[in-house]
Amino acid sequence: MSDVFPTPPTDRFFEDYKLGATYILGSFTVTEAEIIAFASAYDPQSMHTNPGLAAQGPFGEVIASGWHTVSRSMRLLVDNFLPFNGLAAPGIDELRWPRPVRPGDTLTLQATIQEARRSRSKPDRGLIHTLLELINQNGEVVMTMKPMNLIRVRNPEG
Amino acid sequence: MSDVFPTPPTDRFFEDYKLGATYILGSFTVTEAEIIAFASAYDPQSMHTNPGLAAQGPFGEVIASGWHTVSRSMRLLVDNFLPFNGLAAPGIDELRWPRPVRPGDTLTLQATIQEARRSRSKPDRGLIHTLLELINQNGEVVMTMKPMNLIRVRNPEG
Repeated sequence: MSDVFPTPPTDRFFEDYKLGATYILGSFTVTEAEIIAFASAYDPQSMHTNPGLAAQGPFGEVIASGWHTVSRSMRLLVDNFLPFNGLAAPGIDELRWPRPVRPGDTLTLQATIQEARRSRSKPDRGLIHTLLELINQNGEVVMTMKPMNLIRVRNPEG
Repeated sequence: MSDVFPTPPTDRFFEDYKLGATYILGSFTVTEAEIIAFASAYDPQSMHTNPGLAAQGPFGEVIASGWHTVSRSMRLLVDNFLPFNGLAAPGIDELRWPRPVRPGDTLTLQATIQEARRSRSKPDRGLIHTLLELINQNGEVVMTMKPMNLIRVRNPEG
């Protein structure tokens, strides 16, 4: 079961992120061609770019660069989680890739709000801590991370 | 001053990563066109993709997606730090973007080995913890992160 935001991204504020809520943010599928193209530009290790060498390695085929997996997930955050025209994010904790992402995998992103508090120094915003889990078609977690996001407050005087 | 690896990536093993050593891994420059292209695919927030809106925002121009900055840095890790044909990385801690990356910035990546120990369960490899710092042409840190990397041991019996 997924919680649902009460507002669209164009009218979404700190007050709309509920502590403990879990949102399903959508899915995407990765292809071998896309895995090789991303990795050739940014992460040209043979496990990501060379099907011949990768076939002899521990995974038996190319697997996605962890940064490719993160970047595809970011797209879902932008489309379905963050407010439109938001603030820059300060950082990420505990990024993990516990299992490989393989060509053809369909991955679903889930976000759980673990902490939400108003900023003391800047009353126009709040800080949320989220647990993101990316889950493959077999129900296995392939990536987790804990981003921090600064979100504008709807009612700064509230 | 940069430490220098004793071996090329094709012959680099756990023993070559010295605790406390700092390696300068190279530099790259980002363009506005590249910032917009990466963000349009993976992080289409207006601060990264829309020069008109970004001009009215806190940074006065588009800034790079944090994932773009990380991905460009990863390329330097692959080319100048990690062994050729290496192992998958388990994760990253404390990824931070303390300052924006702007069009035209030239960024230099520096890696300091903070921890290096042999695996107890798998004696053919070791785990290194590295502090990565990405520094702009003004000497300001724009990104830090602490990756963990599993590196094959040259002499598993040693």
